[in-house]
Amino acid sequence: MDQMHPNPANSPPLTPLNFLERAAIVYGDSPSVLYNDVAYTWSHTHRRCLQLASSLASLGIRRHHVVSVVAPNIPAMYELHFAVPFTGAILNNINTRLDARTVSVLLRHSESKLVFVDYLSHSLVLEALSFFPSHFPRPILILITDDVAEPIRTVDYVDTYEGLVRKGDPGFQWIRPISEWDPIVLNYTSGTTSSPKGVVHCHRGIFIMTVDSILDWSVPKQPVYLWTLPMFHSNGWSFPWGMAALGGTNVCVRKIHAPTIYRLIEAHGVTHMCAAPVVLNMLSHYNQTSPFTNPVHVLTGGSPPPAAILSRAESLGFVVSHGYGLTETCGVIISSAWKKQWNRFPATERARLKARQGVRTIGMTEVDVVNRESGLSVKLDGSTLGEIVVRGACVMLGYLKDPKGTSECIRKNGWLYTGDMAVMHPDGYLEIKDRSKDVIISGGENLSSVEVEAVLYAHPAVDEAAVVARPDEFWGETPCAFVSLKAELKKRPTEGEIMEYCRGLLPHFMVPKTVVFRQQLPRTSTGKIQKYVLRKHAQAMGSSTVASRI
Amino acid sequence: MDQMHPNPANSPPLTPLNFLERAAIVYGDSPSVLYNDVAYTWSHTHRRCLQLASSLASLGIRRHHVVSVVAPNIPAMYELHFAVPFTGAILNNINTRLDARTVSVLLRHSESKLVFVDYLSHSLVLEALSFFPSHFPRPILILITDDVAEPIRTVDYVDTYEGLVRKGDPGFQWIRPISEWDPIVLNYTSGTTSSPKGVVHCHRGIFIMTVDSILDWSVPKQPVYLWTLPMFHSNGWSFPWGMAALGGTNVCVRKIHAPTIYRLIEAHGVTHMCAAPVVLNMLSHYNQTSPFTNPVHVLTGGSPPPAAILSRAESLGFVVSHGYGLTETCGVIISSAWKKQWNRFPATERARLKARQGVRTIGMTEVDVVNRESGLSVKLDGSTLGEIVVRGACVMLGYLKDPKGTSECIRKNGWLYTGDMAVMHPDGYLEIKDRSKDVIISGGENLSSVEVEAVLYAHPAVDEAAVVARPDEFWGETPCAFVSLKAELKKRPTEGEIMEYCRGLLPHFMVPKTVVFRQQLPRTSTGKIQKYVLRKHAQAMGSSTVASRI
Repeated sequence: MDQMHPNPANSPPLTPLNFLERAAIVYGDSPSVLYNDVAYTWSHTHRRCLQLASSLASLGIRRHHVVSVVAPNIPAMYELHFAVPFTGAILNNINTRLDARTVSVLLRHSESKLVFVDYLSHSLVLEALSFFPSHFPRPILILITDDVAEPIRTVDYVDTYEGLVRKGDPGFQWIRPISEWDPIVLNYTSGTTSSPKGVVHCHRGIFIMTVDSILDWSVPKQPVYLWTLPMFHSNGWSFPWGMAALGGTNVCVRKIHAPTIYRLIEAHGVTHMCAAPVVLNMLSHYNQTSPFTNPVHVLTGGSPPPAAILSRAESLGFVVSHGYGLTETCGVIISSAWKKQWNRFPATERARLKARQGVRTIGMTEVDVVNRESGLSVKLDGSTLGEIVVRGACVMLGYLKDPKGTSECIRKNGWLYTGDMAVMHPDGYLEIKDRSKDVIISGGENLSSVEVEAVLYAHPAVDEAAVVARPDEFWGETPCAFVSLKAELKKRPTEGEIMEYCRGLLPHFMVPKTVVFRQQLPRTSTGKIQKYVLRKHAQAMGSSTVASRI
Repeated sequence: MDQMHPNPANSPPLTPLNFLERAAIVYGDSPSVLYNDVAYTWSHTHRRCLQLASSLASLGIRRHHVVSVVAPNIPAMYELHFAVPFTGAILNNINTRLDARTVSVLLRHSESKLVFVDYLSHSLVLEALSFFPSHFPRPILILITDDVAEPIRTVDYVDTYEGLVRKGDPGFQWIRPISEWDPIVLNYTSGTTSSPKGVVHCHRGIFIMTVDSILDWSVPKQPVYLWTLPMFHSNGWSFPWGMAALGGTNVCVRKIHAPTIYRLIEAHGVTHMCAAPVVLNMLSHYNQTSPFTNPVHVLTGGSPPPAAILSRAESLGFVVSHGYGLTETCGVIISSAWKKQWNRFPATERARLKARQGVRTIGMTEVDVVNRESGLSVKLDGSTLGEIVVRGACVMLGYLKDPKGTSECIRKNGWLYTGDMAVMHPDGYLEIKDRSKDVIISGGENLSSVEVEAVLYAHPAVDEAAVVARPDEFWGETPCAFVSLKAELKKRPTEGEIMEYCRGLLPHFMVPKTVVFRQQLPRTSTGKIQKYVLRKHAQAMGSSTVASRI
């Protein structure tokens, strides 16, 4: 067996870019991208991506250059998932909701060579560039005019997106990766816990993630996929490549707006969509009376959907699946792995089971919940808190220019430490309890801020709640609750009433010792509550009790 | 980007062995294997495989040892696809229909350390061992008694299969591959064109093939899979691992027999099965009058199903897909990639389209049809013959102890040469015309023996036909047809009548110059016609014409 080694026929790099050429053969006449008046087939998309790549190469874009995009889910955004890596370059999607200073930081940190700018992000990007030091090289700018008549055509832009497509050569030979470990995308984290980090993924990782996500969610061939999840959010969990693998129809949409979503679902016969919990929430509260003709499969991530939303969404015809992933894995790596026999359970039990993050996907090698100090697996008892650790092909290469950050996250023992705290249930399903930074250690007890928040959210007057640690001379830390109240209240509760309410529902050590009312809670550009901001406030308050008083 | 390298969290070896532990968590209570009175769940299967692996380790089986199995599609055969590689060893399935001399050659060539022997193959294996030279180390023998009371218990066996399962430790830590390129299976080719070759596949290749086959065939979770395709035939195209990935039910069956198959389909609600064309043929000719309650998806390989069989099978409720693969790829790498809009076409047109091998699967990197000499792609004209070449992760590591054979097949240019001759249609779908060794070159024209055979098969008196080259002093080669006639004929045609018939349907140069009647044609153990045997006969006949006579 010693002569058995990789050979040139079995070791071509795994890459998701192969999917597009195949889609053009198998699904050449079928719709690939729909958007307002745009209706492309897979033949069109294949040709357009090659033409665009050819033009990028003419502009000097080479292997391992970074090319950025600041755009919502429009057709250009979709095509760039192939066109940019077709040149050997790395795709860097930037959240359109970021402020100009942050965009400026990202463009300089990534040394972006070229930026595609959606016309509505024109001022944002130009302001971002104004923060560049004079010596710092400026990227080439390409304007995406989208489907409006070219609205801005200033000297700032070298060309328009459609100009590049038009000029390109459809016979362009795309640049294959030399190694499957070559980088393909650079995604900055949203920064719930710290400043943004540049996550780099390779061709192999994205190939495995794409295939794994299709399998895990059981997406059939030629789905009709609605782009409610932003592609600038972890490349829309790798589904741009997935749709090419399956010959699906990408229904693009610029803005998430309930009536638009419902109209598109009916007009195009949408079968699948991914959505952040907040979008699912919005859709299930919109006054849609009749359920859809056909079921719409929704994959949601982040915090699990509450039972009420789940039940409302299901009555409308949504079939909700729940997954867990990180920017560092570029998509879902743990999913709720529903069992047929659970369908017989009552709604509350179903919601409880669906709220568990679940089990590693087929393509992940290993997932565990471990004690942070000892590194040993926690008991399968549904109550011992530990940190989720993962290993598998879709784990990132690392953080760009941050070997220290990379090595804190990816340890020498071969695990990526996610920073998420969970318990392992006796049946082998895991459930997230908290971010590790959000665990509060009070009197030696680890307490989960999420559990306290769940109680606060159930209070009829509470709109939003976030619980963080406040330093305490005696207890070490105590829970400090930041709360915003609903707008149209007849009577606003006091801090003391909120604590009293918690006392009836929580063990004593979990009851917030401090309650702070706020108009609204600080959020990241992707809508997550910025607990690190609140943690700083709580820190600044000083000790919640004076030791001598206890 | 230069600091970006594989790291310990993203480079654990890809392996299909991971699927079993996950199946035990997600599908622990669901059926895994059904067979006569046997009904295991995925928890059982997981535990049994670990116990068996533990016992194999106790018997001295180590990393890279070869462990052979001579058995049909019984539960033990299924379990060994996990239990053997769980020890780090290589699984070598041996066709039960081989003769003892061939089995002896394979056991010595592979240096097999241990052989699992189905009780019905007892004499075969003992006879095979009798051919071992006296100095040659003999493998340990383990008897599979299957579900009969231990029928043979001789001193030849160290233990029984169930004995090993019973004695094993369910807490056994299975041996993970050190590299994803480590070997996992050794499969001998059936030898249509030459003596058997030992194809070695690695963990990575099998992982990709498994995932790719599920995707390509769109197999949903928890299918009910009937084992009509022998697992000793290219590991049943990788579906043993696929069923663990999906939590499917494996319906095992010892013998392929139409009434049994129909009974199992109805009894267990079979949803999927793979079948050689001959099995599909048998099933569609069996006198089954009413179609199934639910459609049964059938994946067939080898020669494409003729229109009549396809249409009969479809009327019974079979949904037939057609794939192409090689022992050297361990499963389907090209498939007919059906388009929705083709469903509207008439039956003959559908059969013509379904008969084309099609397009590479999602997981294959590249497939092409090239001129053997120039290495250049043939025109997409549906008529220029070339050889199918492939590259991708599921291509074998190589032939065991045969670097010359390996390098003839896997060329330095990075392609595996399949030896199959095909044309590429204008729409990018390829269609096999012949094995390269079966192409006949007559008067400078390449002619496809398969096309001549198709005409012969359409003759009402012909049962089987095979056309090979016969040397010719003037033409170089001429087509020589070996034909067996149907049994219950009133009037048997003459050689001249067969040629006359062909003349009405084929260009002159394609009409057989020689017709030889045979009782039956020589076949391999897997049922393929052994053209190389016929070619030797044709060779021995000498020139079909005398040059001076033309």
